[in-house]
Amino acid sequence: TATTAAHENLLTIGSKIIAVGRNYAAHAKELGNAVPKEPVLFMKPTSSYLMNGGTIEVPHPLESLDHEVELAVVISQRARDVPEATAMDYVGGYALALDMTAREIQATAKSAGLPWTVAKGQDTFTPISSVLPKSMVPDPHDIELWLKVDGEIRQKGSTSDMIFKIPFLISHISSIMTLLQGDVILTGTPKGVGPVKVGQKIDAGITGLLDVHFDVERRPGAKRQ
Amino acid sequence: TATTAAHENLLTIGSKIIAVGRNYAAHAKELGNAVPKEPVLFMKPTSSYLMNGGTIEVPHPLESLDHEVELAVVISQRARDVPEATAMDYVGGYALALDMTAREIQATAKSAGLPWTVAKGQDTFTPISSVLPKSMVPDPHDIELWLKVDGEIRQKGSTSDMIFKIPFLISHISSIMTLLQGDVILTGTPKGVGPVKVGQKIDAGITGLLDVHFDVERRPGAKRQ
Ligand SMILES: [Mg+2]
Ligand SMILES: [Mg+2]
Ligand SMILES: [Mg+2]
Repeated sequence: TATTAAHENLLTIGSKIIAVGRNYAAHAKELGNAVPKEPVLFMKPTSSYLMNGGTIEVPHPLESLDHEVELAVVISQRARDVPEATAMDYVGGYALALDMTAREIQATAKSAGLPWTVAKGQDTFTPISSVLPKSMVPDPHDIELWLKVDGEIRQKGSTSDMIFKIPFLISHISSIMTLLQGDVILTGTPKGVGPVKVGQKIDAGITGLLDVHFDVERRPGAKRQ
Repeated sequence: TATTAAHENLLTIGSKIIAVGRNYAAHAKELGNAVPKEPVLFMKPTSSYLMNGGTIEVPHPLESLDHEVELAVVISQRARDVPEATAMDYVGGYALALDMTAREIQATAKSAGLPWTVAKGQDTFTPISSVLPKSMVPDPHDIELWLKVDGEIRQKGSTSDMIFKIPFLISHISSIMTLLQGDVILTGTPKGVGPVKVGQKIDAGITGLLDVHFDVERRPGAKRQ
């Protein structure tokens, strides 16, 4: 189109993804984890983004990855030590993202006390929709996220079940590190996570707002060393 | 100056820092860790950079942070599945960096199987020098890194003691995720890590090539929630 709205470019400007783990009680429980007292935070690189319609690549020797459907909050302006009361002023829009996870690698890392970078950060591990302007999502804590594998519903949950709400997350994260324009917060996944295998297809969406489609294939080319 | 060499702008272009843990056997040992079979990788946000002469901020309620002096490898161009044989073609320069670490927060995270993001990723936790062009460092595996606290030597080690060498690290990391121009690999710290307290001063350098200076102060303003 002739004009590009500001929110559409945010993902290309951003330099980090801060993801929140265990932010829905029913999901924490399904993985055998306690409900956290403060947000569990980890990073994903922006090189892991995959735009709608793309192919999620499963690296050798894995046969599947776990899907986690999440609401992505996209930051509009530099945020440091932002109080909860004004935190929503730093939101530029929303997107639907998948926090793809190599669960076996994550499990090994967790038991060794090691970071989740390899389990969470590989190329194509953050499929994401285009960015919806904030005005299209008047209440981000009352929307439904869903995900299907080969047409079968696997996850369906309401953002009303988030343990830590968006203003708290922005305030909390900005007390730890500066958030910059285009940075993304992945707000955690509702229950129903599970494997998606090579050859399967994912559809996911925010009910009434958008949907996305991704194929899942074996990663071509080089094996891990 | 009228002209800015390409290597000088790399840090502002980059979007990620990939740090390698336990890459010197004597340091792995001093923290009671096994020498790893493959590199331990974690991420730090680029918002944690602090330029030479700046003040490292110790967040409430901590009294100190641990210093880790490291050689930073700065990537010159997009790298994906790069073989070791050509990996050095993707190096644009080198810098001296400190991987500042809130050790108690890291210890708690490690025993809970949680990520190191809060322990490693806060603003000012990656003090870094300007970027030296590659031509000034003909053998990056034969340089001496040193660090002093209040004038007293704490770390002095040779990059010849790295377990995983730079070509291997670039090849390995690029098999997991795409490295982009300006991205940084922190190659791990030699032994001698330890606390630096509020009010102390750090000098560090690469012998014969550069040195940096940082003050350490309590973080002003907002407390963690
Ligand atoms: Mg991490
Ligand atoms: Mg997740
Ligand atoms: Mg380190």
